[in-house]
Amino acid sequence: MLEIINHRKIRELRLARPPVNALNPGLVKLLTRSMQEAELECEAAIISGSEGLFSAGLDVLELMQLDHDGIAEFWKSFFELLETVACSSIPVVAAITGHSPAGGAVVALFCDYRVMSRGDYLIGLNETRVGLVVPVVLQSALARLVGARTAELMVVTGAMIDPEKALDTGFVDALETGYTDTLSHALTWCEELLNLPRHSMLGNRANARAIFRKEFGESKILGVESFVESWFSDATQTVMQSLLDQLKNKKSDQD
Amino acid sequence: MLEIINHRKIRELRLARPPVNALNPGLVKLLTRSMQEAELECEAAIISGSEGLFSAGLDVLELMQLDHDGIAEFWKSFFELLETVACSSIPVVAAITGHSPAGGAVVALFCDYRVMSRGDYLIGLNETRVGLVVPVVLQSALARLVGARTAELMVVTGAMIDPEKALDTGFVDALETGYTDTLSHALTWCEELLNLPRHSMLGNRANARAIFRKEFGESKILGVESFVESWFSDATQTVMQSLLDQLKNKKSDQD
Amino acid sequence: MLEIINHRKIRELRLARPPVNALNPGLVKLLTRSMQEAELECEAAIISGSEGLFSAGLDVLELMQLDHDGIAEFWKSFFELLETVACSSIPVVAAITGHSPAGGAVVALFCDYRVMSRGDYLIGLNETRVGLVVPVVLQSALARLVGARTAELMVVTGAMIDPEKALDTGFVDALETGYTDTLSHALTWCEELLNLPRHSMLGNRANARAIFRKEFGESKILGVESFVESWFSDATQTVMQSLLDQLKNKKSDQD
Repeated sequence: MLEIINHRKIRELRLARPPVNALNPGLVKLLTRSMQEAELECEAAIISGSEGLFSAGLDVLELMQLDHDGIAEFWKSFFELLETVACSSIPVVAAITGHSPAGGAVVALFCDYRVMSRGDYLIGLNETRVGLVVPVVLQSALARLVGARTAELMVVTGAMIDPEKALDTGFVDALETGYTDTLSHALTWCEELLNLPRHSMLGNRANARAIFRKEFGESKILGVESFVESWFSDATQTVMQSLLDQLKNKKSDQD
Repeated sequence: MLEIINHRKIRELRLARPPVNALNPGLVKLLTRSMQEAELECEAAIISGSEGLFSAGLDVLELMQLDHDGIAEFWKSFFELLETVACSSIPVVAAITGHSPAGGAVVALFCDYRVMSRGDYLIGLNETRVGLVVPVVLQSALARLVGARTAELMVVTGAMIDPEKALDTGFVDALETGYTDTLSHALTWCEELLNLPRHSMLGNRANARAIFRKEFGESKILGVESFVESWFSDATQTVMQSLLDQLKNKKSDQD
Repeated sequence: MLEIINHRKIRELRLARPPVNALNPGLVKLLTRSMQEAELECEAAIISGSEGLFSAGLDVLELMQLDHDGIAEFWKSFFELLETVACSSIPVVAAITGHSPAGGAVVALFCDYRVMSRGDYLIGLNETRVGLVVPVVLQSALARLVGARTAELMVVTGAMIDPEKALDTGFVDALETGYTDTLSHALTWCEELLNLPRHSMLGNRANARAIFRKEFGESKILGVESFVESWFSDATQTVMQSLLDQLKNKKSDQD
């Protein structure tokens, strides 16, 4: 589900859960644990995806099988992943190698730097369109990148945007063409950071990101409760079931 | 003073208090009550103005007749209007159909979306120039749209800007030519929002705007006291009296 | 070390400590005291530098001679200078007349307005590169100007940027060519502000900058302790000693 590749002092965590790198409970826990190991063993980390696809987001099909406790457990895990990335003691880059709706984009928000592949890919927090509510701490992370006004419009409308608009608005920091150049850009960015005096680079980084520690501390518990409640509401279940039915029909048409 | 026009599930509240849609105590209360009714009866609201004029702002001429209690009462009403718009349970769009100084622009800050008419119109928080002080919660609302640096420069200098600059800075979200297209854009924006899953659109909207509930809770009382004190200060009264004298002279020149 | 020049109601405080306007304990205290006098005696202040050089930042060579108490005392003084500028009762403009790394740029962050000279000059918070950590309140001040995302990238990488990029990102508000036009722009900006109704201009300014009073109140003490600890760490001393050695070698090469 996750390929671990070391580039000298930089560890790449490559999402590798076919067909669409969907974030199920197992992958979320594995990614969190691998990030924590990278903090101990490496000096920087890169989260990358497959060529043309970073991650399709949460694995709704698998999550639909879970009961209340299962969903609560999953959401706690997902918040732990986000907090691990946001409060990591080493720099973390998102190499967004393709399409990146919802959950995948959310993970990228908490990285230090985002480089995305040019192409016919979309990125965005489209939760509104799939019936889910984005917690305040996640919306704040987007607002840090694109400003409060644009973040509100993006999240409320569930906008999916192309790489050029992602760069213009600040959703991502750089674009490259193709998988190799995207990863290479991420590696170079890390290497330049690691060439700086380490204690002051990390100290300034910690101060720049102190807000995350505060916000996760305040919002974690509330977030879980209201997510579970919202997940099992008739409204959410109806929207998600209808999306899954569409996917199934599409698949059986193809067969 | 206010025309109520229903466009299917969307209610337009059109300011209609000749000659300049000035916000006097009666119009402010009526607009608040109409917003509250719209929340119960409709799915989205649009606040619009006359062709070429959204609102000239507070009705200073009428407010100058009020005593301390009257001004305190008015300012509480005006804050109630802003809070009603900011914390509305349904989306609210400002269709800024023309000139929009001070009070009118302030109402627009708290809407979900602002579309303005192109033309020889100006928008801005020019309170500095008329001797008034903009409370922190209103300045923060502008900073959400244009960033803290630009908001500070705009408010301190009392800048009035044209539609193009309003779009560039984020003060408004879109421009259209003429009254009809401005209103039509507002309606289309609402309709697209109403086509999304309702519970998640509203849930994400509530999270995006949670800051308003917090800020109004904290700043309301202090805002009233300091506004009344400032209103009756010699400095403010002198500036406003001189503006009114200029208006009168202009009028008698025209007669 | 500091030339005081009155332009009618506007006082210019011109850094004049050859060769590079480095901020040593004496200049920091003198600038603070002169700012406080300007608040009592004038209606606006401008902090300017030499042609081609605003300030080289903290005088590391002199600071390296100080013991723990001396460094603690200096850092308290420097924070007092920043708070004096940020919370000044009169508008303060930075006329950034040239090169402006670290300490000089930090002072400019807290001014009301920044005009910089075009040319082969760089500005930025390059503390990461010289082994120092920028306290949260200083990073927040940069984020007010350029947004949280750009501020984080700038501070963590210790980026030095040219005047055009400083204008694009919002680090400065305007560019002029040459010393005379830079100062003249600063004077004109002040004069236009002073032509506005004074009480409302100052009232709106105080509300726009209320955040500074709050943040300095919260962060001052912690900032001093952690700065002193960081200053005397082996890591910081090593980086600074190596920078000083480079400077000395360069100097003896020139001799």
